[in-house]
Amino acid sequence: MASAQSLSDLAGSDKPLVLQKQGSVFVGGRTIKTEDAGWGNMEPVFGESFEAGNVLVDQMYVQFQVPVGATHTPIVFMHGGLLSSKQWETTPDGRMGWFEHFTRQGFPTYMAEQSGRARSGFNGSIFNQVSRGKVPPSKQPRVYLGTSDMAWKMFRFGPEEGEAYPGQQFPLEHVQELYKQIIPDMFETQVPSLLNELGSPTTNNPTVENVAELASKLDGAILVGHSQSAGFPTQAVLKEKGGIKGLIQLETGCFSNLTPQQVELLAKIPILFMVGDYLGQNPSASCDKEIEQIKAAGGDITFVSLPEAGLHGNTHMFMQDKNNIEVANLIIKWIDEHVESR
Amino acid sequence: MASAQSLSDLAGSDKPLVLQKQGSVFVGGRTIKTEDAGWGNMEPVFGESFEAGNVLVDQMYVQFQVPVGATHTPIVFMHGGLLSSKQWETTPDGRMGWFEHFTRQGFPTYMAEQSGRARSGFNGSIFNQVSRGKVPPSKQPRVYLGTSDMAWKMFRFGPEEGEAYPGQQFPLEHVQELYKQIIPDMFETQVPSLLNELGSPTTNNPTVENVAELASKLDGAILVGHSQSAGFPTQAVLKEKGGIKGLIQLETGCFSNLTPQQVELLAKIPILFMVGDYLGQNPSASCDKEIEQIKAAGGDITFVSLPEAGLHGNTHMFMQDKNNIEVANLIIKWIDEHVESR
Repeated sequence: MASAQSLSDLAGSDKPLVLQKQGSVFVGGRTIKTEDAGWGNMEPVFGESFEAGNVLVDQMYVQFQVPVGATHTPIVFMHGGLLSSKQWETTPDGRMGWFEHFTRQGFPTYMAEQSGRARSGFNGSIFNQVSRGKVPPSKQPRVYLGTSDMAWKMFRFGPEEGEAYPGQQFPLEHVQELYKQIIPDMFETQVPSLLNELGSPTTNNPTVENVAELASKLDGAILVGHSQSAGFPTQAVLKEKGGIKGLIQLETGCFSNLTPQQVELLAKIPILFMVGDYLGQNPSASCDKEIEQIKAAGGDITFVSLPEAGLHGNTHMFMQDKNNIEVANLIIKWIDEHVESR
Repeated sequence: MASAQSLSDLAGSDKPLVLQKQGSVFVGGRTIKTEDAGWGNMEPVFGESFEAGNVLVDQMYVQFQVPVGATHTPIVFMHGGLLSSKQWETTPDGRMGWFEHFTRQGFPTYMAEQSGRARSGFNGSIFNQVSRGKVPPSKQPRVYLGTSDMAWKMFRFGPEEGEAYPGQQFPLEHVQELYKQIIPDMFETQVPSLLNELGSPTTNNPTVENVAELASKLDGAILVGHSQSAGFPTQAVLKEKGGIKGLIQLETGCFSNLTPQQVELLAKIPILFMVGDYLGQNPSASCDKEIEQIKAAGGDITFVSLPEAGLHGNTHMFMQDKNNIEVANLIIKWIDEHVESR
């Protein structure tokens, strides 16, 4: 269970990856004024305080690669809570992740790092305001940490930490490498209500605004959300910026409270919901309701429970499970049939 | 000055990039117990508290790509303060960054994200301890934010924000895209003494330990530091894990207080210091002393001031300046002559 991943574990592929372009870009962001940049005591070093000034927040970092001879619509992956875009790269046991696999299958592939996380940064002024007594500690945003126990249970590796579900597919012998992916979630610095909003089709979450903007700039993109971000693709459609060609929501992002106008917008775009194993009855009641509404409005909506589709043992993290390529190929088949054959 | 980068600005290259492998991996990290994971109030949602448990900290995220037919020694880039590995990717005006350029020149290319930053995460427990009154606010780590004014002056774009040095090479018409790269620096959560340590050849900084480990695992690597991380390559050599084939320290990471034993270790490895323009007298007194000591011990040490080498107008961020490829090629020439011709 404890064996750490090393560079020599990295499997890679026998076939070269041929890219037309690669890189990274930011989408969105706004300038705010801070009086609390944290440098107050640094005047002896820098000669001036730099304590007040403008900082840029809410920007979204996007990493991408475009294969030579792309054959598919661009696809944008959004990571879940407590995680970064690393989620879509090399798996904990060193196999190919979906970022590379989708590129190799002909997709211009984008990973959007949620505003407030990792390379996208967060708005940090309030922590310095608390340090200096300007704001009471009780008003400070929580810094959410993912414990190993929490990850084990929430990601459905097994009923108790160290005990695996029979037949489960996560590479648990390298679970420490997953724990290294888990980083502080600063969503309270940005969208204090985010947890309440997970069931709301409308949001002020800058990531949703930014990913809608990205799809519009790309002039055509399939949006993929997972877990915390599962509902972001739907929320992005409702921003009505255009360019969204398909919605893929993994575990799960259903909304049971859509207005008729929202249903009408969503019925124009193919939608896929996908869930793994160990969930009991699927789809949930809220998914049932959304599916019924979208279908009644003439929409194209598919719900895939992986065990019912013949893939067993998948956890919440099926993009990293041992059969992650099979799961990806099921998604690509849906894209072929529902998005690109249109 | 305000024009934002858009996806259509991304220049890329006419020639495909052919990779043998790509991916990401973590190096290092340790498990700590926290009683303050931030979820205390979430029991109604999750059914249990997840407030206490194990979290992994001090790990270092490393993104890499290896070209088909690599012809050079692996090279590892470390970003500066307030920045992430984005620093080495697409420039603010959409040109190719050094991550891609070095890969195209035949280097297996690695970007090490400092422990405590971006995808490497940070140790966040203390913020929750402050929120709950367990620790006084004055003991809370500062969250260092880079203001636009600070970046403009410290990165030597000009004497005052909005006023450029004549002939300077940074793409200032896209400076907002640089400001988006600037994210909170959490070094006080990890190495409270980091600013004092910038002049010390020994350190407990986990990034230094981790990058030394990376070089050893790669069984041969050139380490590149910049600004806050400029001295990390030297500090990594002094960890004596082996595998370091060359040191490249950009702006600047000189140490004037090396012991004879340290000088002896460093004299075995080729060293390059490189600085940009607008710095006045170069090298500084501390660099002078180190250069003299290393040379006296038979070492191979080179100091390049870009304006003296005929490249004018380079700022602190010369990996993003308009002539960034010329600067990179000067470094590659040094690698050819001092590291690989050995």
